[in-house]
Amino acid sequence: LDALTTELRRIVGAQHVPTDRDDTAPYATDWTRRWRGATPLVARPGDVDEVAAIVRACRAHRVALVPQGGNTGLVGGSVPLAGEIVLSTRRLERLGDVDALGMRVVAGAGVTLEALQHAVAPAGLRFGVDLAARGTATIGGMVATNAGGTHVVRHGTMRVQLLGVEAVLGDGSVIRHLRGLRKDNTGYDLASLLCGSEGTLGVVTAAALRLIPTPRTVAVALIGFATVDAAVRASAQLQHDVPGIEAVELMLRDGLRLAGAHLDVTLPAVAEAPVTVLVEIGVAESPVDVLAAAVQGLEGRVGEPAVAIDARSAGRLWRLRDAHPEAAAALGVVHKLDVTLPAPALAAFVDQVHQSVRARAPEATCLVYGHLGDGNLHVNVVGPGVTDEIDDAVLDLVVEAGGSISAEHGIGTAKRRWLEQVRAPGDIAAFRAIKRALDPDGILNPNVLLA
Amino acid sequence: LDALTTELRRIVGAQHVPTDRDDTAPYATDWTRRWRGATPLVARPGDVDEVAAIVRACRAHRVALVPQGGNTGLVGGSVPLAGEIVLSTRRLERLGDVDALGMRVVAGAGVTLEALQHAVAPAGLRFGVDLAARGTATIGGMVATNAGGTHVVRHGTMRVQLLGVEAVLGDGSVIRHLRGLRKDNTGYDLASLLCGSEGTLGVVTAAALRLIPTPRTVAVALIGFATVDAAVRASAQLQHDVPGIEAVELMLRDGLRLAGAHLDVTLPAVAEAPVTVLVEIGVAESPVDVLAAAVQGLEGRVGEPAVAIDARSAGRLWRLRDAHPEAAAALGVVHKLDVTLPAPALAAFVDQVHQSVRARAPEATCLVYGHLGDGNLHVNVVGPGVTDEIDDAVLDLVVEAGGSISAEHGIGTAKRRWLEQVRAPGDIAAFRAIKRALDPDGILNPNVLLA
Repeated sequence: LDALTTELRRIVGAQHVPTDRDDTAPYATDWTRRWRGATPLVARPGDVDEVAAIVRACRAHRVALVPQGGNTGLVGGSVPLAGEIVLSTRRLERLGDVDALGMRVVAGAGVTLEALQHAVAPAGLRFGVDLAARGTATIGGMVATNAGGTHVVRHGTMRVQLLGVEAVLGDGSVIRHLRGLRKDNTGYDLASLLCGSEGTLGVVTAAALRLIPTPRTVAVALIGFATVDAAVRASAQLQHDVPGIEAVELMLRDGLRLAGAHLDVTLPAVAEAPVTVLVEIGVAESPVDVLAAAVQGLEGRVGEPAVAIDARSAGRLWRLRDAHPEAAAALGVVHKLDVTLPAPALAAFVDQVHQSVRARAPEATCLVYGHLGDGNLHVNVVGPGVTDEIDDAVLDLVVEAGGSISAEHGIGTAKRRWLEQVRAPGDIAAFRAIKRALDPDGILNPNVLLA
Repeated sequence: LDALTTELRRIVGAQHVPTDRDDTAPYATDWTRRWRGATPLVARPGDVDEVAAIVRACRAHRVALVPQGGNTGLVGGSVPLAGEIVLSTRRLERLGDVDALGMRVVAGAGVTLEALQHAVAPAGLRFGVDLAARGTATIGGMVATNAGGTHVVRHGTMRVQLLGVEAVLGDGSVIRHLRGLRKDNTGYDLASLLCGSEGTLGVVTAAALRLIPTPRTVAVALIGFATVDAAVRASAQLQHDVPGIEAVELMLRDGLRLAGAHLDVTLPAVAEAPVTVLVEIGVAESPVDVLAAAVQGLEGRVGEPAVAIDARSAGRLWRLRDAHPEAAAALGVVHKLDVTLPAPALAAFVDQVHQSVRARAPEATCLVYGHLGDGNLHVNVVGPGVTDEIDDAVLDLVVEAGGSISAEHGIGTAKRRWLEQVRAPGDIAAFRAIKRALDPDGILNPNVLLA
């Protein structure tokens, strides 16, 4: 390791290879405090050539490394849990010029989502993926985990935004295709393959990203429903009726109350409904009218919808949704499960999760909310009696219902032992064959996904 | 080969292994008549197990095979040009139940696009990719080539519609992930990897597909412009102004005249403009008003737009666009190039292509049209003096402009020698490593893409 440390310092400069425990500790623990590791050193390269040199040095020394962006994941995928060294991509902050006509930009892996958003806004453009950790989450990490967020129902996940990548593979070679064209069928889609591979095939160093027009006006409404089932049907109906639908988010009464208390705000009257759905649309003319008309036709509604008529009141409604994870975190170390359910099975699952948690930890708080439009729910469990057994019970329910145990955050370390239950043996054999092909010595994130 | 023939007949039945030249000839030539091959036999399996048995038998005998769907490609990717056997997926016609709430369906590889469209329409749903060859093109072939078509600007290519695949890899193993969830980050995205791999990694046998709501009403307009540059700017403007924009197609005056003559119809007055753009939008309320308002603001317009006020007149406008390839085909064997240009370089490219063709084949007809919203142009050259040299000259211009030499149809056989000019050495090395990993003996489409 000493020889490697010397070599890495030669490559990136001593100041970018911290080894002191105080300096490396922030890289060794995730923000939920659930995943804590330790690392002998962090390497902070400044460009793709340095990344390649680091990977080659690690390969020569047979030392494993964990690529890390903003470290905002939930499944222990970017934390050195087995003493790996950390390769931080945060210094790869170069952001190319925005091509307003072609609606594209090339961003370094270390660019934060927020920095990207600020850079493209003056051109009347935005980025299709948005999520609460925007100030910290980096483009590289978002590519590696195929991040989703609140606008997938309209614009798709990171993979859909990705027009090409530059990356260093596990064998130290560099792949690069950053022309950023919307249609480009010249060979295997390495960008899509790396997207969601959780740092096990390559270290993403830059990405060509599609941009989308910012709608001139948006409208937001909070709509009450008697049951989750009615909300699921309304989600399908809204997607059918409104072409510019940007988000369809699910909340339950308990979660909304907790969020309101956390924010210290008065909730709108509709928050008394057992189930609420936050809908955002972006249309050219009078979006409020379009939304109001669409809401009228929905069955199973409860109460009068809260409709935002300006950006400020829209922001207030969104804040209720965004405060859910914060409000949960304020109660302790949260067990966070991020799952997808088939639409027909979603309502029953929400009931079952609450029953299951109540049976095992009657004092615990169980919040279920998320991206209804994609069938993607976040289950947050926190409080006395919460153990890994609860995670297992919830994921069991997901598997039984034909859902996915990981919607947005990947398999990481947390869900490794579940992989064989949700993927066919042939699929996992193919994963391993691809892993061997691109990372022949298995030095990239060896404890994630396929371990 | 005799031993293999016997084995294949045992697997799928003798009637599904034709060897007579008369029976095999239709599988050996593509519809453009540009790519003609020959094959000793065609295997027509009826399910995934038969596909796997065929691939394993071919592997054991070290005999190469070409997977073939509807055989509607343009780059010689599904034709046995080196005497390979043909594996036809057309009998894999099983279509699952439509999940209207979850907006998804599982389709066998042999299902035609048209059959899929008919099956999902009663649920108020449609499929996001549409293209002129819908009656023949199969889902399997569309996955293998990452097909695009006229609605990519709104809904993305096949890869975006793909929620999972079942396939037989080159080593004879079966991968299968057909839950069809919109968000599912459990391992490498094998579906995206196979999508666009042109039959070189695996034979797609089924696909889980996302469906989208059918807009209640649509509006279509044909808008005239003085220059291609104005049309490019208008395309960006329209995408900015109209959230439900479904298609933005480019035509030039010569092509429109040829299409009109081919269809024997009177062209609308706006067809006199040097450049015309066909725009389709789908919105909830009064789409014609929305479209008319959006058109008003466009710069560089010429003439009065032809706006369709009902499905029939919309169909008439679309037919002008759709007739372009037919009208060209009626003139002879067409050299068809399918390319993407960066938006800022598109207008200059259109000029250069015409100049380049005129210099080399002054008598030839050169039609340029295509999916302006994606920067995807189709260049059709037909007539006296048209040689491969013209293809090379056009693709040279594409490379110089930073475009892609293949937008929708892949590399196939036609563009193999161009691959190294448009992809980095590291990318091609990664393609080869993945190819070796999933097709270790190189039996799948060995003359396509990486040959």
